[in-house]
Amino acid sequence: MKEILTLRSPAEALELLAGFAPVGTERVALVEADGRVLAAALAAPCDWPLWTRSMMDGYAVRARDLAAAGPAHPVRLAVRGAVPMGDSFAGEVGAGEAVAITTGGKLPAGADAVLVVEDARQAWPGAIEVLGDVGPGANVIRPGEDFRCGEELVPAGRRLRPQDLGLLAGLGVLEVEVRRRPRVGLLSTGDEVVPPGPAELPPGKIRDLNQTVLAAQLRRAGAEPVPGGIAPDREEALRAAIEALWERSDAVLVSGGSSVGTHDLVERAVTSLPGVEPLFHGINVRPGKPTLCVRRGGRPLVGMPGHPVSSMVIFDVFVRPLLQRLCGEAPRDPWPARRRAVMAAACRKTPGRDEYVRVALAPPAAPGGPWRATPVPGGSSAFSCVVRADGLVLVPETVDRLAAGDEVEVLLYL
Amino acid sequence: MKEILTLRSPAEALELLAGFAPVGTERVALVEADGRVLAAALAAPCDWPLWTRSMMDGYAVRARDLAAAGPAHPVRLAVRGAVPMGDSFAGEVGAGEAVAITTGGKLPAGADAVLVVEDARQAWPGAIEVLGDVGPGANVIRPGEDFRCGEELVPAGRRLRPQDLGLLAGLGVLEVEVRRRPRVGLLSTGDEVVPPGPAELPPGKIRDLNQTVLAAQLRRAGAEPVPGGIAPDREEALRAAIEALWERSDAVLVSGGSSVGTHDLVERAVTSLPGVEPLFHGINVRPGKPTLCVRRGGRPLVGMPGHPVSSMVIFDVFVRPLLQRLCGEAPRDPWPARRRAVMAAACRKTPGRDEYVRVALAPPAAPGGPWRATPVPGGSSAFSCVVRADGLVLVPETVDRLAAGDEVEVLLYL
Repeated sequence: MKEILTLRSPAEALELLAGFAPVGTERVALVEADGRVLAAALAAPCDWPLWTRSMMDGYAVRARDLAAAGPAHPVRLAVRGAVPMGDSFAGEVGAGEAVAITTGGKLPAGADAVLVVEDARQAWPGAIEVLGDVGPGANVIRPGEDFRCGEELVPAGRRLRPQDLGLLAGLGVLEVEVRRRPRVGLLSTGDEVVPPGPAELPPGKIRDLNQTVLAAQLRRAGAEPVPGGIAPDREEALRAAIEALWERSDAVLVSGGSSVGTHDLVERAVTSLPGVEPLFHGINVRPGKPTLCVRRGGRPLVGMPGHPVSSMVIFDVFVRPLLQRLCGEAPRDPWPARRRAVMAAACRKTPGRDEYVRVALAPPAAPGGPWRATPVPGGSSAFSCVVRADGLVLVPETVDRLAAGDEVEVLLYL
Repeated sequence: MKEILTLRSPAEALELLAGFAPVGTERVALVEADGRVLAAALAAPCDWPLWTRSMMDGYAVRARDLAAAGPAHPVRLAVRGAVPMGDSFAGEVGAGEAVAITTGGKLPAGADAVLVVEDARQAWPGAIEVLGDVGPGANVIRPGEDFRCGEELVPAGRRLRPQDLGLLAGLGVLEVEVRRRPRVGLLSTGDEVVPPGPAELPPGKIRDLNQTVLAAQLRRAGAEPVPGGIAPDREEALRAAIEALWERSDAVLVSGGSSVGTHDLVERAVTSLPGVEPLFHGINVRPGKPTLCVRRGGRPLVGMPGHPVSSMVIFDVFVRPLLQRLCGEAPRDPWPARRRAVMAAACRKTPGRDEYVRVALAPPAAPGGPWRATPVPGGSSAFSCVVRADGLVLVPETVDRLAAGDEVEVLLYL
């Protein structure tokens, strides 16, 4: 009766998950685009800045007028007015002349540099005295110096950040083409599972917490959860529920039922659907070994482990990169928040398998000391351990145990 | 005419910003609570699990029946049925008996351990043969073993994560008391500033990009931006705009106008309002030195530098911790995503001042090698540099330059 899983290495599983194509695109208003993935590279529509701008408060001058200026050779310039902020200066800066200008002001015609206000002193009303030279182009930014027309500013596949939106706003771009959020169906399985609710729990039942966790994880990853409810432990009903959800989703996560045991219905239900191509069943990782992945019409279904702790880990390590792929995101570290620490206690693990150990972090005991990571007790059936944890430590398959004092890198929960 | 700023050290500025009280609370549905800050600690309403649960697929047994079992002394047990998933077993496990059970099943009365399915073999229909003992409590999790009634599960001030929501869902908690999102007024200043729009830019004008960046930064920090438009460079009008915005916000960020120069109107406008208490004007940091902070009726106003690059840095380094405070968040690293790298090129800086250098990151040239950080050219007036940057390197005031090959920690833009 028992089927043996053919375990994939984590790298193989990730490679198979990278084989999916991104979802389609949509146009959204710039103010709604933070965290969305840009569909096509954005090139500069013009040189920037548009006109030569002062970078300091001071005086617009002709550099050649000041070429001979020095502490012993003050040069006097007649101040011909001030550049009105947000407008052009009406006249031109002639020989021996200066025009007051503030940071961001448009350099008047004739001038080619800005003399910083601290380097000028009032000679008499309407004239300044200068004790040093300035080079042509000093303290100004010229058209095209920030970027040139046609230059790529934001690459395709970037998850837009506040500064990317800012640049687009500055250029007058108010809408962008982004990948739509992948719709990810969530289905829980198990006769023992009931929806979360305040009612008293009947004996033998547990509330479905995985769908709550997965929905939040999906939103953080830029996807849109599609709640699919709870399917019973009957193959026919399960198959129908999966098929209906798969039809209206870009991907499906089925929670529970993927372990090899008496209740291993998900694989049977899934693989009996027409057009389903199996990718893997089993990853050499702990927790979460019995994870299942299949494809149908280009859309993935992942059979997630039912243990909430395992489900979280499998999402973070394998589903997050899959979602980056579906979102059309350029490859990047799916876990950017990391912190180096030393183990404050030893920790055993299963040999020959990558293991994600849940740890709590304590700040350095003395200034300059290391952060300390303590394994959080509780197996994958004790869900409170991930609530007490600040992150995970990946202990590679080649390592059999961590000793107190070992240096590790903690993948942080944010 | 020129006023000299009294520069605060960054640590002093942060300490002053930590002096604000958190905003009030509100109840939200659990499904909306991801990323919100829990207002009061949450204690377990009951022991967990509620009943003894199997952690494996196998047989519920009485451990003492198997005490003498060994490879040479098989013990036979009569299988009295199976625990129905999601329900209680109707009978009791008597001496010499076993009941089939799956992972998550409720342990039947009489049993005190679970024998893993792999350790039993079929003797004849309705009976199993066991070649080893199991200890009492083996492969089960008992009531209260995950946590006990009254135990603190989620501390006050935690920004809720997916697993925190999951735990609450599992306990049947569907609403939580969280801090409301601080409402943060955004006002831009400057006669040269026009709202972002597709229209052609008149000479001397620039589009307001700071408000777009700040609004996205605020949302990421859990705050709600309150757009306040653009105020002109006239003290009266500026004061009126600030006062109106401050009235309806928990905090105000005024963009531009905080440098000491001809357009230094913000400080005059702000400090002339009744009840305003100055906190600081000037931080010994670059970029962003002329940052201003005042308080009125317990609510902060920050005069942000007008340069978009400086504005971003000041937000990340000083306003983000202020918002954590306003959100009632327990103190934590405002910049958790960091990566060690080596400088790929040298970089000068202003001596005697903390400086945040914008860098682009390149992955290791060879496996196991270091990430490489290259300073992005462009002063704070070239906004594209933060778009090209992957993060910041803090060069402390005591360091005068970074050399190629220096090890640094990059604060990542996500």
